[in-house]
Amino acid sequence: MSFERLQRQIDILANPTVVGLDPTRELIPPHILENAESAAQAYFDFNVALITALFDIVPAVKPQAAYYEALGPAGMAALAETTKFARDMGMYVILDAKRGDIGSTATAYAEAYLGAESEYAVNAMTINGYLGSDGITPFLDAAVQNDKAVFTLVKTSNASSGELQDLVSGGRHVYDAVGDLIEWLGRDSLGANGYSRLGAVVGATYPEELKILRQRLAHTFFLVPGYGAQGGGAVDVAGAFDAKRHGAVINSSRAIIGAWKKTGNNGEDFTDAARAEALRMRDDLRTVLGL
Amino acid sequence: MSFERLQRQIDILANPTVVGLDPTRELIPPHILENAESAAQAYFDFNVALITALFDIVPAVKPQAAYYEALGPAGMAALAETTKFARDMGMYVILDAKRGDIGSTATAYAEAYLGAESEYAVNAMTINGYLGSDGITPFLDAAVQNDKAVFTLVKTSNASSGELQDLVSGGRHVYDAVGDLIEWLGRDSLGANGYSRLGAVVGATYPEELKILRQRLAHTFFLVPGYGAQGGGAVDVAGAFDAKRHGAVINSSRAIIGAWKKTGNNGEDFTDAARAEALRMRDDLRTVLGL
Repeated sequence: MSFERLQRQIDILANPTVVGLDPTRELIPPHILENAESAAQAYFDFNVALITALFDIVPAVKPQAAYYEALGPAGMAALAETTKFARDMGMYVILDAKRGDIGSTATAYAEAYLGAESEYAVNAMTINGYLGSDGITPFLDAAVQNDKAVFTLVKTSNASSGELQDLVSGGRHVYDAVGDLIEWLGRDSLGANGYSRLGAVVGATYPEELKILRQRLAHTFFLVPGYGAQGGGAVDVAGAFDAKRHGAVINSSRAIIGAWKKTGNNGEDFTDAARAEALRMRDDLRTVLGL
Repeated sequence: MSFERLQRQIDILANPTVVGLDPTRELIPPHILENAESAAQAYFDFNVALITALFDIVPAVKPQAAYYEALGPAGMAALAETTKFARDMGMYVILDAKRGDIGSTATAYAEAYLGAESEYAVNAMTINGYLGSDGITPFLDAAVQNDKAVFTLVKTSNASSGELQDLVSGGRHVYDAVGDLIEWLGRDSLGANGYSRLGAVVGATYPEELKILRQRLAHTFFLVPGYGAQGGGAVDVAGAFDAKRHGAVINSSRAIIGAWKKTGNNGEDFTDAARAEALRMRDDLRTVLGL
């Protein structure tokens, strides 16, 4: 019931938002950096303050693995602690890792982040499906076994996503083929709300494709990046939702966690600025979606 | 000169082999597991023994990130120590991470593993190009800046690789399109040997495609998985090499590091078994390639 739980938290807060926890030295206020003994500690302190400021209005967080990996093993420890803190605050945790491999290697990745003995507290993770079903089913199997979920990259939000994803073969885009594959692979893992454990990443920056994919992939929950800093607005993401206004969660990262950089202050107000931007986004989505 | 260095080490040893360091509890001999204080320590001890047994006959190692990540931050520390030990023994280190993202996130991954301040000692890493050039150039830029190299997945060795990679659009397979893209993106990073810093992963299990891709991608160094445990032989990989018998490195993982499981002994002889299998593979490649 992994996506059912996410949907329920979205419904309770009337807010289909996930906040990206993508810390960098530039986005962390000076006083946090100065008071921490290491960059990894600063990342964790920053995340704890953000989660504490947001957990009662935002249902989910999405730490981006790359920023933690860039700090080496200490960064991975900060990632683990961040996921546990978010879980303890009742948030749904999506690890943006975009992993992808086959066989026992894919199983090892799934164990790492979705396994019963994982050191991380993750409800769902993102994967890259370029290797085909061999690269997807090990993650799905782990998700089924441990009540987790998976989002596979389908149509990404970046400018060059079309170079490979928009190629057309037999009347289908490559991204359609990936979407069809995950809709098929997920068919035996449907929850009570009609969505399987295999979701899709579809960017807000391609609103027409988003709308068409929503029709095409009726059992696939969407994670939608590209709102805010990448240029998408609430109108652009409206097509990600089904007739009940369910089935999607919209990500914003820098626009929320770096909101303090636009207040003209020194960053001491970063949690207030993040909360204000999260509320603005929530209300924007509520208005457009009629929530 | 990252691939030039790899080629030189291959030439010196007359052995275009890279050994995959993919530790699992099943592949590590009982006495190593019993003597180690943790699984991460056992992985490192296993790797140190293998590297020590192989460095004078094999030019390169390829740790598979997933197995280390499965142990959490302690596993990442074992990965970091493994890469440093391999570097100190003079081996070329390819991190098999298959990362892929865009913009500042891709830059963070590149910093993590190819950066000047990386905690890992890596010469090259594997990436997944599904996001297009936005997802490749940050890694290439880091490689150019820090004398490293990158291998992008083109045609993978697994059974289902064709589901997406073999789709044909405008007369090209999707894997051709990825290959053409990296051949183009790499054009300004050619070394003296004619190969760019952007290599390709092409599986040994599709020998015809391998031969055609070698012709098509004249400046792209190949990393070829699928020899040994996955079923490919020296004849299958011959097509990966150029007319000078350069331009490719062939991976074997389980067949070498798990060779002790076929000797009928208790695993105390695991380094001897690994060395014997590495020599057998080397001689197999030498015979077929005429090295």
